[in-house]
Amino acid sequence: MSHLDRDRLSELRRAFHRHPEPGWREFRTTARVVEELERIGVDEIAVGREALATDERMAVPPDSELADWRERARETGVRSDILERTDGGHTGVVAVLDQGDGPCLGLRVDLDAISMEESAESDHRPAAEGFRSEHDGYMHACGHDAHLAIALGTIGAVTESDFEGTLKVFFQPAEEISGGGKAMAESGYLDDVDYLLAVHVGLDHPTGEIVAGSDRPLAMAHVTATFEGASAHAGKAPNEGANAMQAAATAIQNAYAIPRHSDGMTRVNVGRIEGGCASNVIAEEVTIEAEVRGETTALMEYARTELERVLYAAAEMHDCDVSPRVISDSPSVDSHPALRDLIGNVAWTVEGVERVVPSYDLGVSEDATYLMQRVQDDGGLASYVLVGTDHPTNHHTPTFDVDERSLDIGVSLLTETALQLSRQRP
Amino acid sequence: MSHLDRDRLSELRRAFHRHPEPGWREFRTTARVVEELERIGVDEIAVGREALATDERMAVPPDSELADWRERARETGVRSDILERTDGGHTGVVAVLDQGDGPCLGLRVDLDAISMEESAESDHRPAAEGFRSEHDGYMHACGHDAHLAIALGTIGAVTESDFEGTLKVFFQPAEEISGGGKAMAESGYLDDVDYLLAVHVGLDHPTGEIVAGSDRPLAMAHVTATFEGASAHAGKAPNEGANAMQAAATAIQNAYAIPRHSDGMTRVNVGRIEGGCASNVIAEEVTIEAEVRGETTALMEYARTELERVLYAAAEMHDCDVSPRVISDSPSVDSHPALRDLIGNVAWTVEGVERVVPSYDLGVSEDATYLMQRVQDDGGLASYVLVGTDHPTNHHTPTFDVDERSLDIGVSLLTETALQLSRQRP
Amino acid sequence: MSHLDRDRLSELRRAFHRHPEPGWREFRTTARVVEELERIGVDEIAVGREALATDERMAVPPDSELADWRERARETGVRSDILERTDGGHTGVVAVLDQGDGPCLGLRVDLDAISMEESAESDHRPAAEGFRSEHDGYMHACGHDAHLAIALGTIGAVTESDFEGTLKVFFQPAEEISGGGKAMAESGYLDDVDYLLAVHVGLDHPTGEIVAGSDRPLAMAHVTATFEGASAHAGKAPNEGANAMQAAATAIQNAYAIPRHSDGMTRVNVGRIEGGCASNVIAEEVTIEAEVRGETTALMEYARTELERVLYAAAEMHDCDVSPRVISDSPSVDSHPALRDLIGNVAWTVEGVERVVPSYDLGVSEDATYLMQRVQDDGGLASYVLVGTDHPTNHHTPTFDVDERSLDIGVSLLTETALQLSRQRP
Amino acid sequence: MSHLDRDRLSELRRAFHRHPEPGWREFRTTARVVEELERIGVDEIAVGREALATDERMAVPPDSELADWRERARETGVRSDILERTDGGHTGVVAVLDQGDGPCLGLRVDLDAISMEESAESDHRPAAEGFRSEHDGYMHACGHDAHLAIALGTIGAVTESDFEGTLKVFFQPAEEISGGGKAMAESGYLDDVDYLLAVHVGLDHPTGEIVAGSDRPLAMAHVTATFEGASAHAGKAPNEGANAMQAAATAIQNAYAIPRHSDGMTRVNVGRIEGGCASNVIAEEVTIEAEVRGETTALMEYARTELERVLYAAAEMHDCDVSPRVISDSPSVDSHPALRDLIGNVAWTVEGVERVVPSYDLGVSEDATYLMQRVQDDGGLASYVLVGTDHPTNHHTPTFDVDERSLDIGVSLLTETALQLSRQRP
Repeated sequence: MSHLDRDRLSELRRAFHRHPEPGWREFRTTARVVEELERIGVDEIAVGREALATDERMAVPPDSELADWRERARETGVRSDILERTDGGHTGVVAVLDQGDGPCLGLRVDLDAISMEESAESDHRPAAEGFRSEHDGYMHACGHDAHLAIALGTIGAVTESDFEGTLKVFFQPAEEISGGGKAMAESGYLDDVDYLLAVHVGLDHPTGEIVAGSDRPLAMAHVTATFEGASAHAGKAPNEGANAMQAAATAIQNAYAIPRHSDGMTRVNVGRIEGGCASNVIAEEVTIEAEVRGETTALMEYARTELERVLYAAAEMHDCDVSPRVISDSPSVDSHPALRDLIGNVAWTVEGVERVVPSYDLGVSEDATYLMQRVQDDGGLASYVLVGTDHPTNHHTPTFDVDERSLDIGVSLLTETALQLSRQRP
Repeated sequence: MSHLDRDRLSELRRAFHRHPEPGWREFRTTARVVEELERIGVDEIAVGREALATDERMAVPPDSELADWRERARETGVRSDILERTDGGHTGVVAVLDQGDGPCLGLRVDLDAISMEESAESDHRPAAEGFRSEHDGYMHACGHDAHLAIALGTIGAVTESDFEGTLKVFFQPAEEISGGGKAMAESGYLDDVDYLLAVHVGLDHPTGEIVAGSDRPLAMAHVTATFEGASAHAGKAPNEGANAMQAAATAIQNAYAIPRHSDGMTRVNVGRIEGGCASNVIAEEVTIEAEVRGETTALMEYARTELERVLYAAAEMHDCDVSPRVISDSPSVDSHPALRDLIGNVAWTVEGVERVVPSYDLGVSEDATYLMQRVQDDGGLASYVLVGTDHPTNHHTPTFDVDERSLDIGVSLLTETALQLSRQRP
Repeated sequence: MSHLDRDRLSELRRAFHRHPEPGWREFRTTARVVEELERIGVDEIAVGREALATDERMAVPPDSELADWRERARETGVRSDILERTDGGHTGVVAVLDQGDGPCLGLRVDLDAISMEESAESDHRPAAEGFRSEHDGYMHACGHDAHLAIALGTIGAVTESDFEGTLKVFFQPAEEISGGGKAMAESGYLDDVDYLLAVHVGLDHPTGEIVAGSDRPLAMAHVTATFEGASAHAGKAPNEGANAMQAAATAIQNAYAIPRHSDGMTRVNVGRIEGGCASNVIAEEVTIEAEVRGETTALMEYARTELERVLYAAAEMHDCDVSPRVISDSPSVDSHPALRDLIGNVAWTVEGVERVVPSYDLGVSEDATYLMQRVQDDGGLASYVLVGTDHPTNHHTPTFDVDERSLDIGVSLLTETALQLSRQRP
Repeated sequence: MSHLDRDRLSELRRAFHRHPEPGWREFRTTARVVEELERIGVDEIAVGREALATDERMAVPPDSELADWRERARETGVRSDILERTDGGHTGVVAVLDQGDGPCLGLRVDLDAISMEESAESDHRPAAEGFRSEHDGYMHACGHDAHLAIALGTIGAVTESDFEGTLKVFFQPAEEISGGGKAMAESGYLDDVDYLLAVHVGLDHPTGEIVAGSDRPLAMAHVTATFEGASAHAGKAPNEGANAMQAAATAIQNAYAIPRHSDGMTRVNVGRIEGGCASNVIAEEVTIEAEVRGETTALMEYARTELERVLYAAAEMHDCDVSPRVISDSPSVDSHPALRDLIGNVAWTVEGVERVVPSYDLGVSEDATYLMQRVQDDGGLASYVLVGTDHPTNHHTPTFDVDERSLDIGVSLLTETALQLSRQRP
């Protein structure tokens, strides 16, 4: 804790908090990470295309949208050499710290924020203390700003520690839209990782509590579908149309009614809809955005397959066409018990930790699972670690905030875990 | 036909065709009409607020939308004194021609175009002959441009004729969205009208055919409704939301299933939908735009009442709120048999007329019915006259066009009818 | 009227009224008709199979059901030789009266009753005067009893008249379920019919009113469909089922929402449903009984085709099978104007007739249209004649009754029409 | 095992298997149990009304149905004195064995079978060995026949053992329809029970496996609802009806779409439907039978409340009435850890036991929970014990069968547990 003390961690977190950027548009955030890494002096900094398998990116927004955010970043003084490396929405960084012979440890955090107007109320600390979002309509409301501070703090601490081996830190873009996990998993940088720790703060766990390994994150797929029918004059010749509106309504009703599954929980939601041109015209085109989830990857696949059947049959029923597309997805991967136990043991030694939960059913989706799966498929161990933090309101609400005391707990936990893994290598 | 010969009529129609403007945004069209009226020299030109009962306007678009079109009109050189009189979306004109003692005859035409991209194909005459729409995404695809030419031609012809009495021409805005009929009906200008002729071209009647009076236009109401629920995380706590998406889907399915009525045809359509914010959030708000129609006003009211019950019950089912609003409507009014017969007799005397249909079930909606109802309620006679015109494709399609030979048939029919009514007065 | 006076007509009608029998089960009614015909002494009496094209019968109930009614008829003393001729549900009679050279005139009436408990209230005349239905749960609630009396009265009157030609009377079974029309139309007996009169009483036309020819009966098809899925334990493994209940619900919702048609009225109804075995089992099988109608045969076919698409898509959506079957149907056929005019003229000469309506849109379905179509396809003329009768409540209600004064009006109208046709033959 | 050896247990089980009787109609089964108890010589045999709180019975079938099964029992020679005691569907028995001072131990088994045609295939042992169901359409397809043999075997074994205390055996009727649990729980016989063991065979656990205590049975409620609308002629005046068919379809679609709950699994099913009278009549009445379940009682209540809202809103949408009624229900109760541990320890000592599972999520519903809840509310301990048995196909299938080797494992486990509880009393 000499290098990055508590105040420095808070300062870092607040700097990120003030500039929230949504998935694949984290141009400024990426640049800020790179500058910090340069300051610390890590051995390798892979940025954008270097840190991603381009073709595996999912849910990338339209070029115009990317261009707007990139321009915004440029205007606020982001270094042009870094901007250059993130062209076309290639945000994200992999930092490599080579400290000699020893295990290769991966750490995964995320860069992006969500689209939500942050509270300006005086009892919302970021507003009261002057680090509220400066990007209207966007907010770090899930704690990724804290993750970045913890990751950078950990790199700093590890450089000054006895850790022997390699530390790779994955600053993943587009977690909220499940867009970046797969692309980073396939970047090549994971190939030699022996242990991967993905880290998240909060999720209803208070400051002082550590969850050593989470299980059963919900596997998830985002699906979009456009019903294409034929327009007609709704008064004069309704029968001449092929009503995309009716097709969509039928699909929605039946999507929510996909049977519950005996193997565990599933979820279905249609969260966006838009279509038709006027009340007196049979709607030619209606687009829905849906998602399915499951406690296991198989359960999610079950729900996705059922959803697709519903979509096709609803289209057929109203003489429309539809081509459902999976926009992004993520599997369900459990933490490895051995790594989980080791982290649990380390946790008890960390100052400020009052409670260690060995295992916890995550119940949400997370595309860190793509990285975890990759490591475990190659014989490594992965764990999804929760660092408790008091948060006044739920994640993804306008008054979400973290307890900054949890930042150095996170740094200590990760640093000590690194050291422990370094020591115990066979 | 000395004053406005065929070429002049085509030229006028094409000028209007090149500059289509949607309802309540007919700033340029209004100005062009005023200029023509000034050229002809009519006795009174009421514009905008003078020609409308402001509070009875329906389906008026937002101010920003009005401002955009007004600015566009200004930029293309529309006279600022006329623009002044149409502020706040008060488009429309009433022209009064006072030719002494005699009956008061009203003529109603409409100003607005629809939002549709006009065909640029070479076999589409407006494209081939250079008068295709210059306003991208908007088009005179229902013949209102022809109506304007006919009306202006008729005023010219009447000024030069033996007609004794008063001719009032109602250039109504916002017919397509049923927004302007009621406001013009209540302007005061109809109070002394003895005979009202509303005129429309085409509707599948070929050049040379006249329908002396149409019956059973579909009464219509446009209804908008926003389902308001509560958002929730679709993966973590779907039960905590109140799902506006499900409410809307249930409403749509049941709206189309409103029972057919023994008294005659009804129509129901949900033509626009939009709502929700993301696939992983239970939708908090979904808005639909619907319409109901009926062969009689009572049938439309039946469908509207049923639709409202469906909307309220669908909201209740998913713990949402909804407040349906009627945006605009129009009644069903039949043509008066006596006036219809007179027009039919005149029609046979008009050069170019080959077939006269005494009566015809209109089968579409038309807010000219507000003006017709007003006149007939006051003891006057009204008829909805169709002037046949060959049209290559249906109304409201990108390749709609009219046969300009029908323009002077229309002018002759209306002028001769005026003369006939002038002569036969008791 | 010497042969069958008013009292005799009432007596006949009441005898039929007391013994209502549903479609294809009119064993006693058939026998009673045969006995009357024998008493009158007609030239040929074709019964059952002789009067029907067996393979064209539709909506025939199961054998056990037929056997029950036949047994009931036998127990009440129906002659066994007649019962013999109606085995297997071959009810119905064609009577042929040969009165020499002249046109061949057909008359069509119907035998069957409906399943409805007749009122026992003292203000219901059949109850008060002792001729209420003796078959619990069945009732002549549509006037077919009156049709039989009129037909038998007409045969009697014609035998005593100067009519020259052939009179064929078609006593058709199973009209209410649209089951018998086609089979009788294809019996061969219609092949030489020049003029066909189908007759119905009432339908909101009062005593003294005659409708010379009805138009636009609703074409109709009865459709049954069984959704076949797979059962599963609803608590333990709902996902293992293929839910026929959900398929049926989806189908019903979308069936009612089949688009209204620009060419005229359609109707859709799902009137019966049954399926599933217990609340804790995913339903394996659900059967619905539906009907579609249209103002024209084409409109009915449109609705039937759409219904079938809805059924198939709903099954597909829930991984079920379905095979819709048309149980019975009838086309829409208009009365021939020439025959209608002749009947209208005759009607004015009949005592008791106070009003003659030339033409009327029927608005209900009638499988007499099969016979009418057959005659008109062969170059003959057909008309569907309404004989007005005061009826206290609607057809198909427990207190329906006819005004017996209309019986001899019907007999006179038909007899005089026969004579007129006989006289005018070319 | 001297008293009731293996062959005797098989023989008993097969005798019950041959005469399956559904819930509240177990007249013969009750009598057979009583005769066995008399043979063993227990101290008290409470039958029917004596063993039940009459007013707490749920899902009792109509009197005529009860009378049919009672008559059938009488005809096959059931003793009339026992039949007398089960009049009005009061089946069920409580046996009390008083062996001096000591704890009061309860054992609960169930009497009823399900409605399912048993397989007659030669590879189905009951068919091959001559003990297939003799009641067409009914079958012991859930192992209750085995439960009865185990319970009677245990009573026999305990009488011959050193057990000191009281043993009460609850032979509960109507488990499959969740009808009998509450009535037996409130009979008074549970008031002094210190330990309650409910026992079930199979449920996918093989012979040799014991589950010491099951948790999270699904709380369940059966709900029936009749939509009452108004009939109308579907062709002539569909608008005059209030369509119960559409109401039911809307309800079904939305019932299955009740949101998944964050707290755990729920289930919804509509398993039966019937309604309407004919395809050409708007359906006046449609009845559905539904069930809801939840991993906890609260989750079931959530689903039940949501279902009721759906039902009311669907009725309102189509102008119908509906009054949902809960026919039967059962709570979710977990096994007590202390009792579970004791049973687990005993299980390892039983011959034939190869695997002991401490705890298992049941995942189905069971109204034994009413008895368990009653005991635990009074300070006693309860456990739901599974005795593994190989079964060739799933429970509730026509080829379900048990491995009779599991019968004496069950007897031994229960007898040894009784002894252990007797010994350890404080």
